[in-house]
Amino acid sequence: MADPLRIALAGLGTVGAGVIRLIEANGELIARRAGRPVEIVAVSARDRTKDRGVDLSRFAWEDDMTAMASRADVDVVVELVGGSDGPALTLARNALGAGKSLVTANKAMIAHHGLALAELAEKAEVALKFEAAVAGGVPVIKGLREGASANAIERVYGILNGTCNYILSTMEATGRDFGDVLKEAQKLGYAEADPTFDIEGIDASHKLSILAAIAFGAKIDFPSVETEGISRLRAADIEQAAALGFVIRLIGIADTELGANGEDTLFQRVCPYLVPVDHPLARVNGPTNAVVVEGNFAGRLLFQGAGAGDGPTASAVVADIIDIARGDVGAPFSVPVNALAPMPRADAGHRVARDYLRFMVADRPGVLAEIATAMRDAGVSIESLIQKGRQEEGGEVMVSIVTHGGPEANVDRALELLKGSPSLTEPPLVLQLLDN
Amino acid sequence: MADPLRIALAGLGTVGAGVIRLIEANGELIARRAGRPVEIVAVSARDRTKDRGVDLSRFAWEDDMTAMASRADVDVVVELVGGSDGPALTLARNALGAGKSLVTANKAMIAHHGLALAELAEKAEVALKFEAAVAGGVPVIKGLREGASANAIERVYGILNGTCNYILSTMEATGRDFGDVLKEAQKLGYAEADPTFDIEGIDASHKLSILAAIAFGAKIDFPSVETEGISRLRAADIEQAAALGFVIRLIGIADTELGANGEDTLFQRVCPYLVPVDHPLARVNGPTNAVVVEGNFAGRLLFQGAGAGDGPTASAVVADIIDIARGDVGAPFSVPVNALAPMPRADAGHRVARDYLRFMVADRPGVLAEIATAMRDAGVSIESLIQKGRQEEGGEVMVSIVTHGGPEANVDRALELLKGSPSLTEPPLVLQLLDN
Repeated sequence: MADPLRIALAGLGTVGAGVIRLIEANGELIARRAGRPVEIVAVSARDRTKDRGVDLSRFAWEDDMTAMASRADVDVVVELVGGSDGPALTLARNALGAGKSLVTANKAMIAHHGLALAELAEKAEVALKFEAAVAGGVPVIKGLREGASANAIERVYGILNGTCNYILSTMEATGRDFGDVLKEAQKLGYAEADPTFDIEGIDASHKLSILAAIAFGAKIDFPSVETEGISRLRAADIEQAAALGFVIRLIGIADTELGANGEDTLFQRVCPYLVPVDHPLARVNGPTNAVVVEGNFAGRLLFQGAGAGDGPTASAVVADIIDIARGDVGAPFSVPVNALAPMPRADAGHRVARDYLRFMVADRPGVLAEIATAMRDAGVSIESLIQKGRQEEGGEVMVSIVTHGGPEANVDRALELLKGSPSLTEPPLVLQLLDN
Repeated sequence: MADPLRIALAGLGTVGAGVIRLIEANGELIARRAGRPVEIVAVSARDRTKDRGVDLSRFAWEDDMTAMASRADVDVVVELVGGSDGPALTLARNALGAGKSLVTANKAMIAHHGLALAELAEKAEVALKFEAAVAGGVPVIKGLREGASANAIERVYGILNGTCNYILSTMEATGRDFGDVLKEAQKLGYAEADPTFDIEGIDASHKLSILAAIAFGAKIDFPSVETEGISRLRAADIEQAAALGFVIRLIGIADTELGANGEDTLFQRVCPYLVPVDHPLARVNGPTNAVVVEGNFAGRLLFQGAGAGDGPTASAVVADIIDIARGDVGAPFSVPVNALAPMPRADAGHRVARDYLRFMVADRPGVLAEIATAMRDAGVSIESLIQKGRQEEGGEVMVSIVTHGGPEANVDRALELLKGSPSLTEPPLVLQLLDN
């Protein structure tokens, strides 16, 4: 059997420890499949003394993790430190600069610096792999980059954040409100102490921007992702959606369209969507991820599995390592960085959509007329309108509207007309309906 | 850009024509992703004059398809002829023997001769790829061989035949009987004029044996797949299952267990299963395929999409070609053929399962007691028993039993006790319940 592939592992949190456990448990199998053993030779983390439940004594220890990049006894650096910049980025740059392959689970770093890192990797003819950065253990980067490689991708979308999906499906199953379920998710370890990145959709946007770059051959463009989180959703929204035949899921969605000047433009949005109950994504409950890839020949492909956790994430990290051991050092974004097109952000205003609009209004005469008039004046056609009889505290009433399909700009215009109205007790919530 | 990868295409049915159309439509994209253009140079089929809706004039024509293997201007032979033996096999052997990579959608040939062909490929250091042979456009071979490569696979199972799934989900949706829906499926092109391979589970067994070999590092063993088709199912079975909270799907399932002598044994079964309605596979309707891979670190991964059709199948064929263009010539079954273990067939008798048993019985006193007594004497514990009040033609009555979990051998014993009983008007139908 060939020489071992030698790994330096930076970051020994749950995923790092999971990688060590996985290689310990499945090492023989991995050697057979990879054609050579995979061996961890050096590790690094902030605290050397912490008990992680794994034996580190066999590995060299580096206090300065960025120094692992220059170890002569290392072929692949695995970065599991996290953070878009700082030591993770320094390590990544140093490793690729030193001609070592890099495997990372760091979505923030790839979303922000993926192109620069891919350029370094391509120059050095080494691998840069980040399967674990999107959808945890689900091999969707591979599915897109290789499985669907014969297709012009028409659309890619899915459930990319397990925390939000846990919260939304639990709200749905229990009727409880957002804040309540969030607290439980934090207690169970499904949400972090500071949950902002997850619940405000930033984590999902990182992942979507990575998927979009690979799907559409576009330069990665995280800042252009339209992002809305789930923190404004109420139990009543989910109840309302259910009555209409939908569940609510945080969906990241991307496609391309021709811009005004005939150029390809890139549409990227992360937002809670109303998903028809018979859509495959509507059945995805708990901290699960699921991604749909629509290709012009393959049709609709679905990839689903655990979106986080030490085992699934370690599975994706080590799959990348095995690919490298097998000799795969292909372009990280499917085509070389210099072949990725810079795609301007699509103008979403003319896109036709059906919307769910929810207004919290003061309980007084004329409010409904005011809303309906604004809709009419903006050219928004109402399919159904429900004013909930039950009053909430403070005399508020909830009005939910589902629109017929129409340009998004019209809905924006209607909301503009209603802006500042003393009838509205909070800004309206606008969610789109996912087509089936 | 590098030299083109030159393709010879044998077989110009719907899939072959689909491959030509795909490469025409997505050629530029493919060249960017593959790092080199993919060019068809020669084609072959039985009938040169038939109109296939694609322009063949650009390609060299070979009357004898097996001669394509020896063309000096060809790098990869694509075999889309079908049939486990005959010209397809000769072509495959010749191509690999001549040092050309082979891509095929031919599940029967791989199930019967995959190991011998893989040996040829490994000896010649060329690729043998067959993504399209399992689950059509769904990249599940890749998902198993690469995406889940870090895992010891605990179980692989799924819906592997689109024809059966179309028939079963249509029976479920409409309440119609098997024969009626089969006829419709034939009219719609979802079932062949001779549907035996599909409806008797042989096609699914071919696919399962391929998945099992890759999942468990086992020598492919198609003859050992326990196979039962869907032709004995009645509308009443589906109705009965629904009342119990299940749908019926033809599932192929494989895992390994320790045999009596401490050796690994391989369990492979294709059979209609009762699938709990909240299981992801229960939502798979129409001619769709879906495969679940359970890994010891990744947990449950689901791959779903179109299981047949020219577009999806062509997508998988060309994805294999792109992999080859990118330089992937790894072991076809994930590990080299000589590292695949010969695994004896598992003894299923002691496996614990819950069963659905359906008896068609004469409508006369004492029949229920006879069945219940046989169950008791064989140690089968009955969870629920329903005797359908409605009589069918000929005085037949349907008795459905769901058992508590117990060894399969006990159910076999109960059926043995009932064998030859004049009360039974046809042999009992035994289906298992899929655990959730």
